[in-house]
Amino acid sequence: MIANKWALSPDRCFDPNPVQRDLARQLHAAVKDRPIVAPHGHVHPALLADPDARFGSPADLFIIPDHYVFRMLYSQGVAMEDLGVPTKDGTPVETDHRKIWQRFADHFYVFRATPSGLWLTDELINVFGVDEPLNSDSAQRIYDHLEAQLAKPEFTPRALLKQFNIEVLCTTDPATDRLEQHQRLHEEGITLVRPTFRPDAVVNLNAVNWQANIVTLSDVSGIDVNSYAAFIQALEARRNFFKEMGATATDHAAVTAHTERLSEHEAAAIFERALRGQATDEDAARFTAHMLIEMARMSVEDGLVMQLHVGSMRNHNEANFARFGPDTGADIPTSTDWTNGLRALLNAYGTDRRLQLILFTLDETTYSRELAPLAGHYPALLLGPPWWFFDSVNGIRRYLDLVVETAGIYNTAGFNDDTRAFASIPTRHDVWRRVTCNWIAGQAVQGLVSEDDAFEMAHAFAYRLAKRAYRLAEQ
Amino acid sequence: MIANKWALSPDRCFDPNPVQRDLARQLHAAVKDRPIVAPHGHVHPALLADPDARFGSPADLFIIPDHYVFRMLYSQGVAMEDLGVPTKDGTPVETDHRKIWQRFADHFYVFRATPSGLWLTDELINVFGVDEPLNSDSAQRIYDHLEAQLAKPEFTPRALLKQFNIEVLCTTDPATDRLEQHQRLHEEGITLVRPTFRPDAVVNLNAVNWQANIVTLSDVSGIDVNSYAAFIQALEARRNFFKEMGATATDHAAVTAHTERLSEHEAAAIFERALRGQATDEDAARFTAHMLIEMARMSVEDGLVMQLHVGSMRNHNEANFARFGPDTGADIPTSTDWTNGLRALLNAYGTDRRLQLILFTLDETTYSRELAPLAGHYPALLLGPPWWFFDSVNGIRRYLDLVVETAGIYNTAGFNDDTRAFASIPTRHDVWRRVTCNWIAGQAVQGLVSEDDAFEMAHAFAYRLAKRAYRLAEQ
Amino acid sequence: MIANKWALSPDRCFDPNPVQRDLARQLHAAVKDRPIVAPHGHVHPALLADPDARFGSPADLFIIPDHYVFRMLYSQGVAMEDLGVPTKDGTPVETDHRKIWQRFADHFYVFRATPSGLWLTDELINVFGVDEPLNSDSAQRIYDHLEAQLAKPEFTPRALLKQFNIEVLCTTDPATDRLEQHQRLHEEGITLVRPTFRPDAVVNLNAVNWQANIVTLSDVSGIDVNSYAAFIQALEARRNFFKEMGATATDHAAVTAHTERLSEHEAAAIFERALRGQATDEDAARFTAHMLIEMARMSVEDGLVMQLHVGSMRNHNEANFARFGPDTGADIPTSTDWTNGLRALLNAYGTDRRLQLILFTLDETTYSRELAPLAGHYPALLLGPPWWFFDSVNGIRRYLDLVVETAGIYNTAGFNDDTRAFASIPTRHDVWRRVTCNWIAGQAVQGLVSEDDAFEMAHAFAYRLAKRAYRLAEQ
Repeated sequence: MIANKWALSPDRCFDPNPVQRDLARQLHAAVKDRPIVAPHGHVHPALLADPDARFGSPADLFIIPDHYVFRMLYSQGVAMEDLGVPTKDGTPVETDHRKIWQRFADHFYVFRATPSGLWLTDELINVFGVDEPLNSDSAQRIYDHLEAQLAKPEFTPRALLKQFNIEVLCTTDPATDRLEQHQRLHEEGITLVRPTFRPDAVVNLNAVNWQANIVTLSDVSGIDVNSYAAFIQALEARRNFFKEMGATATDHAAVTAHTERLSEHEAAAIFERALRGQATDEDAARFTAHMLIEMARMSVEDGLVMQLHVGSMRNHNEANFARFGPDTGADIPTSTDWTNGLRALLNAYGTDRRLQLILFTLDETTYSRELAPLAGHYPALLLGPPWWFFDSVNGIRRYLDLVVETAGIYNTAGFNDDTRAFASIPTRHDVWRRVTCNWIAGQAVQGLVSEDDAFEMAHAFAYRLAKRAYRLAEQ
Repeated sequence: MIANKWALSPDRCFDPNPVQRDLARQLHAAVKDRPIVAPHGHVHPALLADPDARFGSPADLFIIPDHYVFRMLYSQGVAMEDLGVPTKDGTPVETDHRKIWQRFADHFYVFRATPSGLWLTDELINVFGVDEPLNSDSAQRIYDHLEAQLAKPEFTPRALLKQFNIEVLCTTDPATDRLEQHQRLHEEGITLVRPTFRPDAVVNLNAVNWQANIVTLSDVSGIDVNSYAAFIQALEARRNFFKEMGATATDHAAVTAHTERLSEHEAAAIFERALRGQATDEDAARFTAHMLIEMARMSVEDGLVMQLHVGSMRNHNEANFARFGPDTGADIPTSTDWTNGLRALLNAYGTDRRLQLILFTLDETTYSRELAPLAGHYPALLLGPPWWFFDSVNGIRRYLDLVVETAGIYNTAGFNDDTRAFASIPTRHDVWRRVTCNWIAGQAVQGLVSEDDAFEMAHAFAYRLAKRAYRLAEQ
Repeated sequence: MIANKWALSPDRCFDPNPVQRDLARQLHAAVKDRPIVAPHGHVHPALLADPDARFGSPADLFIIPDHYVFRMLYSQGVAMEDLGVPTKDGTPVETDHRKIWQRFADHFYVFRATPSGLWLTDELINVFGVDEPLNSDSAQRIYDHLEAQLAKPEFTPRALLKQFNIEVLCTTDPATDRLEQHQRLHEEGITLVRPTFRPDAVVNLNAVNWQANIVTLSDVSGIDVNSYAAFIQALEARRNFFKEMGATATDHAAVTAHTERLSEHEAAAIFERALRGQATDEDAARFTAHMLIEMARMSVEDGLVMQLHVGSMRNHNEANFARFGPDTGADIPTSTDWTNGLRALLNAYGTDRRLQLILFTLDETTYSRELAPLAGHYPALLLGPPWWFFDSVNGIRRYLDLVVETAGIYNTAGFNDDTRAFASIPTRHDVWRRVTCNWIAGQAVQGLVSEDDAFEMAHAFAYRLAKRAYRLAEQ
């Protein structure tokens, strides 16, 4: 290794055994230039819709909006204020982005052996051309370099969208969104960016501002949402609108996997209590449980793929939530009971192939115990890739080891990056491709799959499974 | 690899590291020809008791009765009717076995990297001499070949029983079974097939047809089961009969591990409610919890090894259950609390060496957290091998990694295949032997066991532990 | 391997891949001679405080007090009486230590592939110079050898304390302990042995002899503990005393992670019920949940690092507990809900850097799901190393694989041996150092950390993290 020349090993994520590594290289070489299919993520569409949009400073790009990054520094004693994370009440935080960057660089060693460290390193080196390791000493030089790069036309979001070879990029959008950014993209002829219908803010009765959200839902749908029946109609109307705008999927989050069919009467009574501001926590939990089944019913009818993300206790740290709002790295997983929880929904629609339901878990113990057996039985079910804390080299390996033997690879949904950080998309897909190729190579060198099958499987993981899962085109 | 010559690597399941692989080969060579001890499984005794029994068509042998196989195809959108799975109401299903076979072959790729795929491949190649890969194109040629093989005398169940070098094969039989097939085998001098006492259908008060089962129990035992006391007597009588017929073990299934000693009075009251058709679900759960302790008590007295399988939520898919009945791949695991659940039973009999209680889990999280510590303490406890979804290359590895450090290998019960698929028995035992040998080799090359110990351990896993656990002979 | 020359591989715990092994060796060579930091354990201070203390016979040293050892033999049918484990009622047990040793040697094979086997082997060979394998045949010769060694001045506890290169050794001491042994050590100028404040016996209202313990607390604190307020004062006084005597940490055990702030009034009412002998189990559970928060509050104020060990159901085997008392290998883990359980405590003090709270789990499923996310967010939290059943080669690997990607290594607390077995301390730290070095080498050869970082990380795991976590000195 040349001193001070920062580089990533071309064999990163590959096993050191030479036979396995050689096959992993071949598999990776075969898939690394496949276009990126990014069917689930949180890139803001405005970043791409506005040709003049820019990433801002290096701190804007890498630190301030990225809770993966700042929560780790925070856990090591760096105040969030000192990292420029904005407060809800507008009390002052650090505004000198060079100082923020310096603090990040001073602590960059804490990301050793973490996926964030790997993504950041890959992005700095291979997207932005940084060539010396990031540390206290190099911090300001690298800041200079990044600032210069970000000023160039080839480092605008639009330019990177082309450079990254992205075939499809799905955003996540509130059910009440008018999708004006997507409209703008369409007008420019850019159709690779697609919206995803996310109704949590109107379905979850104890969402912040639920009543205001219902007013907005009435506005955008043109349906006066003054009853449960009107609510259902408005949601159906919004789904149709999203579908017209290119959406192929919906997305739903819940703390538990509980599903339960309420009678029309019960559902209406709860909804009316909520309109009057009188819904209890139990009302909200049961209504979510019911609406998940309703959403599956709508998916059966309109063909939108249904995604379900379960298991995050949001805003565990109440004081930080009051001060900084959501998404500051304080969403902590809890255990999930998929087997009992999903039973009502699956008994209603799980055998109906018109439904495609993709499950995401934060409880890895359910991979082999519950999710792989469920996906290996119900025709409507697919398993989403490792999510959040588990979208990592070891996390992906555990997923493959725990899921594939029971569910096979064809009951999985390929990869999605689930990221807000647009510039990190290629590295995240590359890590997935490297780890899956290496895992397949491991199967092959142990005589468990043939070499021909290995190449088929590598292509499936890298590209085909995601397109099929999200109904983005038949392959 | 010669094109179109189908073969499995002689080094399958072995690590690619040459030093580890070389030792794994040596260990495997030392144990691969040991006789098969199959102390728990679901082969129907009639298949062996009748010298004229045949396997039927290739679809009869490989697909129609095997829920491992058809549930995977079903999960990928193939209707169970199209696979010839019989319906409960007799509505028609596919009867053309060549068409069933074609559908299986068309989708054989979905078994890539699964244990079912490995077993099927090994069976096709090494039991039946298939020499080209199974796919859409080869399907009918392979069907022809299999049909021809199955017509030969060397491919009857009886012929394979000899060829497979099986030393003992235990079936699983209802408590009410008259064991006429076993009687027939004995009359022919075949004593290697042994029954296992399985009383779930009379112990579980909400079993389908429970009352009819109790009538049968009265019939076969000659004891009028009109009270709890008579029920206990009848069970004891049946156990004695099974023991006389060669049984060395009993088998019990429960959704949870809960055990609880009821008073004689409570148990009798619940039993009488059940006789009147008035038992509640809670009655049934408590009665099972109580009867597990009673069964342990009987094992202490009669020496039958007690097996306990916990954690499967049966028939998760209600519509399919109504249409096709049980065992269609819709039994889904849930989490299990062994530590609290078994406490009452273990406090009653766990320190009594006359009891040998073998536990099977579908919750791998309990291997290291609960089961290995329990088995590493209580003299009466042994840990059964990985069961069902976990009887796989990775599943066995996880078991070894999670169990052995705390419980040692001598608190485990060796291997059993738990299979209905008679012709798959050798490949299942071979996978276990390969994976254990490779794991032991891994320990040795890391300096954690000596080479001498490695050979001892390989023999224990391959043969001795199972015989000791099931009291099939002292080694 | 020379026949009958007993030795451990110098490459034990290292991967067989030559590139990884070579780097693992280099990393291990760089850290193996760092002093031992043992910030949490159960060595009795009298063993070191009394210059004349001796280990006793080989059976006294290796078997009779070590529940890791005798519970494994017990699980295989050896009576605890026959191993000399003393009974509570004084009924006789084996007193011939040569017979006890012979039984141990006869069954030494049951420790194959266990950490106990590795520790015992390393200790016998590398501390005591045994040079032939322990088995039935060699038992008495080895006993002779050990007896002779233990009679020598270089094998006294004091002599080994020097030889082991221990920089700091923390004991665990009841809140009511007068720390006379520590005083005695101080008088001799030995300050490397430090006490740890462990108040469970007075905090846990259903501890055996709780009322007597409160009387003792009054005595040693000089505060009449006749009220909740006095109880708090007495605890604060004792903490101050421990701190003066060199303690830098406290230690707390609980069955669950539940924390809950009671009102002063509620806490006082429960405490008074307890004084009157009327506290219920629910009282005890809620009081513990409350006192954990109080202890965090005191740590914020006095700076003592707080350790929390959760998840052990003590004395699962009631008959054995009645006969032999606690700590006989019958403490069995249960699952733990850290996310919900710790929320109250963390919301009170989790963002306060004056608190350093180190968590230990017996539920490995929480490593990646709950503990790493919590430690990767809250500034006050660190994750302790694998505890008990998980302090093993595979246990440490799982910990590293499951924790580091989310929490990084700098939110962990390095290693502690948690042992009563003084002579096993070097081998336990060596296993940790070997396994961490090998794991880091694995990261490096996969291109996930640089070689420079690898050496930094090895030093951190071997030495620095523990010192930082326990505030034993800034590095």
